[in-house]
Amino acid sequence: MNAEVTLKPGERIDDLQRNGRVIIQNPARFCFGIDAVLLSGFAKVKRGEKTIDLGSGNGILPILLEAKYDGESFTGLEIQPENVDMARRSADLNRTEKVRFVEGDIKEAVQIFGKNSTDVVVSNPPYMKAGSGLKNPTDAKMIARHEVLVSLNQVIEQTASLLIEGGRCYFVHRPFRLVDIFSSMRQNQLEPKRLRLVYSQINKEPILALIEGKKHGGVELKVEPPLILYESDGKTYTREMRENYGF
Amino acid sequence: MNAEVTLKPGERIDDLQRNGRVIIQNPARFCFGIDAVLLSGFAKVKRGEKTIDLGSGNGILPILLEAKYDGESFTGLEIQPENVDMARRSADLNRTEKVRFVEGDIKEAVQIFGKNSTDVVVSNPPYMKAGSGLKNPTDAKMIARHEVLVSLNQVIEQTASLLIEGGRCYFVHRPFRLVDIFSSMRQNQLEPKRLRLVYSQINKEPILALIEGKKHGGVELKVEPPLILYESDGKTYTREMRENYGF
Repeated sequence: MNAEVTLKPGERIDDLQRNGRVIIQNPARFCFGIDAVLLSGFAKVKRGEKTIDLGSGNGILPILLEAKYDGESFTGLEIQPENVDMARRSADLNRTEKVRFVEGDIKEAVQIFGKNSTDVVVSNPPYMKAGSGLKNPTDAKMIARHEVLVSLNQVIEQTASLLIEGGRCYFVHRPFRLVDIFSSMRQNQLEPKRLRLVYSQINKEPILALIEGKKHGGVELKVEPPLILYESDGKTYTREMRENYGF
Repeated sequence: MNAEVTLKPGERIDDLQRNGRVIIQNPARFCFGIDAVLLSGFAKVKRGEKTIDLGSGNGILPILLEAKYDGESFTGLEIQPENVDMARRSADLNRTEKVRFVEGDIKEAVQIFGKNSTDVVVSNPPYMKAGSGLKNPTDAKMIARHEVLVSLNQVIEQTASLLIEGGRCYFVHRPFRLVDIFSSMRQNQLEPKRLRLVYSQINKEPILALIEGKKHGGVELKVEPPLILYESDGKTYTREMRENYGF
């Protein structure tokens, strides 16, 4: 452990297997998934760039990106105060001042950070539409998974406005929303430039989509080779997963 | 051979390996590619349905679809008279009256066939933007490959108008145009419902995208497992290609 922090009931400290970084998690609230890890590998942050994570949860993306890239700052915006508190204590544990967390609503990101204020935006937004039958819209897991507090379109609108000219955004989402994502990005002058689909196995449907967009970028999408998680036995991680993602 | 037809200089008759169907081709003009064969396997035509192929070239798609499906009619619209002539002689050879070819401009398809006049539209449109440096815009191969005479957006507009409510369309295109395709389809109330990416090998970028849309369809895209052409040796066709496409 790198520093003294107080753990609250139900919390644990997980080693991220990346440059000694750790994270505090509470399984009763929400633990980061493979989506955040894959997005941190798909995103690119250049030296000196500022990065904002919209909906940072327990802080996994800013922490992983700071471990990997020599950016200037990695700022997470998160609406749930318990998550912000946990993420700040993780940043303290990792003894880095480049990683910061701001409590606030994604819908107000531009008011909070300012227009054209960042080089890179990343987001692992809620995947599911809000629907009408949601039992408990204040539940932490529900907020992370369903568009209860923010819609995909609102995330994309805020991203477009936050980014500098030529700035880049990186999203992870479910493939069934690809048309929504592409249409909304283009409407907001955030041109999709790279797409990588993630498959659990090569003969299955993809489970995730990784997307890079560029503000006022030229029109041409590069679809990358499939990212496959498991060998055909369904258990052994593929070579790419082991070599690039440390699984 | 099933009937008497006259071959013109440079033409040959190819066996399509599907229910005895044949096609006349002229390599100096344009021969059908794997894209048309894959689209004929991706598309679905139900009993009694009418199908229109926008830009039918030498007639490969209507001929392959008629061989596979019990539709009512398979009509190709093609602007180049030499292609229409060749396609009609292929239809004669195959002794089917379900396959017909009409000479005309895709941009005028609705005037030719009428609004809401068909159940299914298929198209293998030109992949490349017209650009400014094209040497020979009247060349048959140029017309088939570049958007000289018709744009992607015009193909989609005509498709949307030709289809009955709930009618389906099937396109094959290059992955780098996916954002253009999805955006234009949604703008024209032709919701993308299925996407299948085609890879030459599993560790390469996809070379083709097969897309199904539905007129006024609900919003949810199904991304299917990858369609892989070759085994890792780069030469042997995969089992799916051999079993489903006869390679």
